[in-house]
Amino acid sequence: MTRLFINEVAPRDGLQMEKRFVPTHEKIAFVDALSDCGFAKIEVTSFTSPRAIPALADAEIVMREIRRVPGVVYTALVPNLRGMERAIESRVDELNLVMSCSESHNVANLRMGRAQSLAQLLEIVREAGHGGLLCNVSLSCAFGCPFEGEVAVDEVARIATALIAGGAAGVTLCDTTGMADPAGVRRLLERLRGVLAIDATTIHLHDTRGMALANALAALEAGATRFDASCGGLGGCPYAPGASGNVNTETLVHMFECMGHTTGVDLARLLRVAARVPHLVERPLSNALLMAGTRDTLHPLPAS
Amino acid sequence: MTRLFINEVAPRDGLQMEKRFVPTHEKIAFVDALSDCGFAKIEVTSFTSPRAIPALADAEIVMREIRRVPGVVYTALVPNLRGMERAIESRVDELNLVMSCSESHNVANLRMGRAQSLAQLLEIVREAGHGGLLCNVSLSCAFGCPFEGEVAVDEVARIATALIAGGAAGVTLCDTTGMADPAGVRRLLERLRGVLAIDATTIHLHDTRGMALANALAALEAGATRFDASCGGLGGCPYAPGASGNVNTETLVHMFECMGHTTGVDLARLLRVAARVPHLVERPLSNALLMAGTRDTLHPLPAS
Repeated sequence: MTRLFINEVAPRDGLQMEKRFVPTHEKIAFVDALSDCGFAKIEVTSFTSPRAIPALADAEIVMREIRRVPGVVYTALVPNLRGMERAIESRVDELNLVMSCSESHNVANLRMGRAQSLAQLLEIVREAGHGGLLCNVSLSCAFGCPFEGEVAVDEVARIATALIAGGAAGVTLCDTTGMADPAGVRRLLERLRGVLAIDATTIHLHDTRGMALANALAALEAGATRFDASCGGLGGCPYAPGASGNVNTETLVHMFECMGHTTGVDLARLLRVAARVPHLVERPLSNALLMAGTRDTLHPLPAS
Repeated sequence: MTRLFINEVAPRDGLQMEKRFVPTHEKIAFVDALSDCGFAKIEVTSFTSPRAIPALADAEIVMREIRRVPGVVYTALVPNLRGMERAIESRVDELNLVMSCSESHNVANLRMGRAQSLAQLLEIVREAGHGGLLCNVSLSCAFGCPFEGEVAVDEVARIATALIAGGAAGVTLCDTTGMADPAGVRRLLERLRGVLAIDATTIHLHDTRGMALANALAALEAGATRFDASCGGLGGCPYAPGASGNVNTETLVHMFECMGHTTGVDLARLLRVAARVPHLVERPLSNALLMAGTRDTLHPLPAS
């Protein structure tokens, strides 16, 4: 039995792509509901330009108005020094930075090469460090790139090494477009042994090709204990319209708990929050666990 | 790299619950298309009473009219001696029998206790053996029962032992309502070591709670090499309306092949068959892999 740590990313990674602008008070209520579920971390919002991500233009208000539950780390995405300043003013507990392991994905997503991204992130890490603020870096396309295909584990190791050496507190390995498979997850985590402490490693999986839980199992077996996930499975994949994106938190927690691990998450409570997510985004979301119930849901014998 | 064997069950296990009666010539074309995909086995139909399963009332015609591809084992479900006789007349290669590991599920599904089922199946195994015909037995609820909850691994071992001792060629461990988790899969396969040769063991998973591929991975790691799966994910779960049932063959094969294993299945060809399944059953089916493409599908860089 292992103690696992679940980071809920739906308020940021989930909502950022939604067509509906979720009203600020509803976002706050969503984060507050998640705060009572037992997560290690909640990614609350993004301090990006409101023009780039209008869905999260209310970052300051949301960050200020949420109820902070002791023990939960409230984090936010920060793309640059300006975002860092805004995040610090809004009293985030930790910053989440982002760059890609693939050159072309970094250019497509962040409009600069990886070397420039790395230099900028290291500057943010340094600046944030002066105020004692920790930075985690989410590495997109750690398991493959939708433009380039394979991403060498050595490239991921090189970037992770530079970030940790530069003071980053942790690294999240993101399967941005659902290209990871269990063997690849194992290969990468083995390659990173010695480079990145397992406690400083978070796994961020997408279910685009149905492999998210299998990949989570492979990561767990390779020693990983920290996982991102998104309540209700919120968060799409821009390269696969209609396909699912982020791994669903309920389904991930359910599997871990079925296996006898401890996540700290109150699954029954989380399922009640997940049931309201379609109302939040005003579109239907398929949710296997909400439809089927947890595995301990017993059914009456059919009358015959 | 392991050689894995995939059994396609959609023509029987998938179609048996469909509201639409799939016309006989369409069933035949479906099996014929699957025959060219490289499966080890195809479960073609069911020799049950047409009143019990009207969807498969055309068992004889389908079994007679399909094109037999050398190397593929064409099997059919058989509930009793009368079904066995019909199946033999129709020249099936192997019989698939069924009973449950759970007493209440056996009573609900087969209207008799497990002891009576076991006795009847052993009689079929004996009779079929006189003609040199092999029998596999699918054990429902091997990983849990929707009425009783946990099913003891010792119970599964007891039934499997009796079947093998009585001449059954193999046993399929069925997660009938998607209650298996990776730890449970491992526990059962470890318990059955010594009871059941791994080559005589097939794993039949449902994705009801999203764990099918994770369970497949756990089974693979425990030595399993034979898996049932259903093209297009056909086949519902009566206890979870709307929830997915059988693990989707494309998704399972895709994961195994991504991991470097060999399934013998031509995935591109299978995906073309899967794309036609919604037309066959005249209802939409969600299919992650058809939506997203295989992991090696590269995308053009966005113009900017």
